[in-house]
Amino acid sequence: MANFKLTRDLQIQAQTKIIHLVMDGLGGLPRAEDGKTELEAAHTPNLDALAGRSQLGLAVPVAPGITPGSGPAHLSLFGYDPLEYDIGRGVLEALGIGFDLQPEDVAARGNFCTVDEEGRITDRRAGRIPTEFNEKLVVLLRDIKVPGVQTFVEPVKEYRFVLVLRPTEGQTLYANIADTDPQKLGVPPLPAEPQDEASKATAELVNGWIAAAREILKDHHPANSLNLRGLAKDPGLPKFGEVFGLRAAAIATYPMYKGVAKLIGMDVLPVAGEDVEDEVEALRGHWADYDYFFFHVKKTDSAGEDGDFDRKAAVIEHVDEAVVPALLQMEPDVLIVTGDHSTPSALKSHSWHPVPTLLWSHYCRPDGALGAGGAEFGERACGRGSLGVFPATDEMALALGHALRLTKYGA
Amino acid sequence: MANFKLTRDLQIQAQTKIIHLVMDGLGGLPRAEDGKTELEAAHTPNLDALAGRSQLGLAVPVAPGITPGSGPAHLSLFGYDPLEYDIGRGVLEALGIGFDLQPEDVAARGNFCTVDEEGRITDRRAGRIPTEFNEKLVVLLRDIKVPGVQTFVEPVKEYRFVLVLRPTEGQTLYANIADTDPQKLGVPPLPAEPQDEASKATAELVNGWIAAAREILKDHHPANSLNLRGLAKDPGLPKFGEVFGLRAAAIATYPMYKGVAKLIGMDVLPVAGEDVEDEVEALRGHWADYDYFFFHVKKTDSAGEDGDFDRKAAVIEHVDEAVVPALLQMEPDVLIVTGDHSTPSALKSHSWHPVPTLLWSHYCRPDGALGAGGAEFGERACGRGSLGVFPATDEMALALGHALRLTKYGA
Repeated sequence: MANFKLTRDLQIQAQTKIIHLVMDGLGGLPRAEDGKTELEAAHTPNLDALAGRSQLGLAVPVAPGITPGSGPAHLSLFGYDPLEYDIGRGVLEALGIGFDLQPEDVAARGNFCTVDEEGRITDRRAGRIPTEFNEKLVVLLRDIKVPGVQTFVEPVKEYRFVLVLRPTEGQTLYANIADTDPQKLGVPPLPAEPQDEASKATAELVNGWIAAAREILKDHHPANSLNLRGLAKDPGLPKFGEVFGLRAAAIATYPMYKGVAKLIGMDVLPVAGEDVEDEVEALRGHWADYDYFFFHVKKTDSAGEDGDFDRKAAVIEHVDEAVVPALLQMEPDVLIVTGDHSTPSALKSHSWHPVPTLLWSHYCRPDGALGAGGAEFGERACGRGSLGVFPATDEMALALGHALRLTKYGA
Repeated sequence: MANFKLTRDLQIQAQTKIIHLVMDGLGGLPRAEDGKTELEAAHTPNLDALAGRSQLGLAVPVAPGITPGSGPAHLSLFGYDPLEYDIGRGVLEALGIGFDLQPEDVAARGNFCTVDEEGRITDRRAGRIPTEFNEKLVVLLRDIKVPGVQTFVEPVKEYRFVLVLRPTEGQTLYANIADTDPQKLGVPPLPAEPQDEASKATAELVNGWIAAAREILKDHHPANSLNLRGLAKDPGLPKFGEVFGLRAAAIATYPMYKGVAKLIGMDVLPVAGEDVEDEVEALRGHWADYDYFFFHVKKTDSAGEDGDFDRKAAVIEHVDEAVVPALLQMEPDVLIVTGDHSTPSALKSHSWHPVPTLLWSHYCRPDGALGAGGAEFGERACGRGSLGVFPATDEMALALGHALRLTKYGA
């Protein structure tokens, strides 16, 4: 907050450009054979050379010891304290499948589940039904009519789907409604309970939809019932362009990241394919139009989630070769290379470890200079860097400072 | 606040003495030829030897990426969060010229400006008139009478002056009054608009003064009108002596720094001349009388503002030779060497870069020990130091701890 107040009050016009290169899940853990992390083991001559001209540090996405989801981790990189700004799960789930969510929509994450003859839950995930089965059920659920409201039902994966309610008649929907999932077995689902007066009418519509859905599902064991969780609307986050004074573009190939960027008002650039080379082309094609580029690389995280150390290192090597020189060739004024969180292949999941981060600008004080040792971009090098261990939410203000886009505070 | 609560509750009496040596604008940026900053390039055998027995770190004056003015930067060093405690511009401007501001005074920064025949501003700085012209106009403005209020008008530089209103008849003045400067051309100045009920009467007096002043100025093109900005009173900051339990003295040669120190209740020691040697003499002469000495060196900043790398390095070398050994000879218990902010000669201005800081005490854990390499006081050495990257507002509590002036928190 205070931070937005400063960046709002102090922002000045400039011609400078900032690139935020985010390798998803970049941070890792050492492998047994030589004690190197994925990033340290990767052969990255371009990043290492850049590190020698940059400041290094370790970014904390949410708080020490806390493992972030992708939504909070990206909000943090964009300067939004994820403990203050909350994107509801329903909204994140909708963004994650590329659903074109509108500001007045209410979105929920749906889970198919199994109930017994008394309606008590026996499997909260319906035996993890195949996605194909999910897709067939979703088609059936699309027939449910809710008075005055347009509904969308979209499959996600296995037992997960998304429900979106869109008001059609000038009415407003409210989403302060509790989950129906009791989070335990042997009891029936809960009703969708409104948590405030305003949400009462919407909760009734939701409960009507649920009743109709359960009627349709009852013969489709093991997916013979469902729960809704995380009912939410677009949280109306402050707009990135306004709080930082930047024309901002997002370059990403996965829906979730495009969705979060869109929520805060970034333009999402079209990318011709799935490869980082396509993303580089998208940046090159719009270089003149924006001040700030969020450049997202997904495959580091996927490899980490798969527990594939070598593949993660290989993705980093590919970024080093195919992305880093191309970005430098654009002559940005500030280049930050980081991740949204760590995804060590040793853990096969997101983790709480702070994220190796490199900040280069014309006005940085390179850590690698003056005999501080061979330059390298890696977790341990970053642990000795002059950015220290710092909140990831500081990255945007640092970038603005280095881009000469903030005037003096006080006289 | 939390910080003051701790230092208020835990402070204990002791005989220990703290020196806070502040080289204004100390932090710099590397020069091209050898990648060294001003501080790194300076030959500083005394500071380097001291660094070997000290802890090092990088102090953040306001927030990451934020460039501080001198007022906020000094408040921060004195332990006052500059985002919480605000000294208005009018007050800072008055302090900057050494005006003896009283707690009930209202001070404003004045700018002479040029207006056309319809009263619309055509130059907000009146063509940057010479200071001598300013001084003549100020003499004319001193004739304006404001009922029940004593007025002071003092020239600053070029188009800038200070107006101070001092209540004389037991009345109270309030300064929540908007600037008259519309910050653009082609429109007339704004009235001095009160922002709350209490400030209404004062705003009327101010507007009366402005009308009379414009009548006097109308034939003095290009300074044929004026604006007032930053109307403010002494913000009534908590007193340094009380929040830290220290008898505190300020040693400085420039009015602004003496003024800020005075605002928080420090005694401002007389200094016989403009040189650091004079400041050392002032400290020596009052060594027995105080527990804490703020020792300010101005010329590092001036050289940085002038973009003169070599002169800035030379000032640092002079401090190393003429100040550091003399201070050590006094046998302080704690010596902190730092700056209020960075003023890299490469930028010719204040900057956001964190400030190299050295803390020596009998009870510090020297970074230079254990083969950490040749000791040096410089930005990069501080970037590897055990104080880390820390808020400058922490320095006072650290100093008190190292001076054995705080008792245990809790049992």
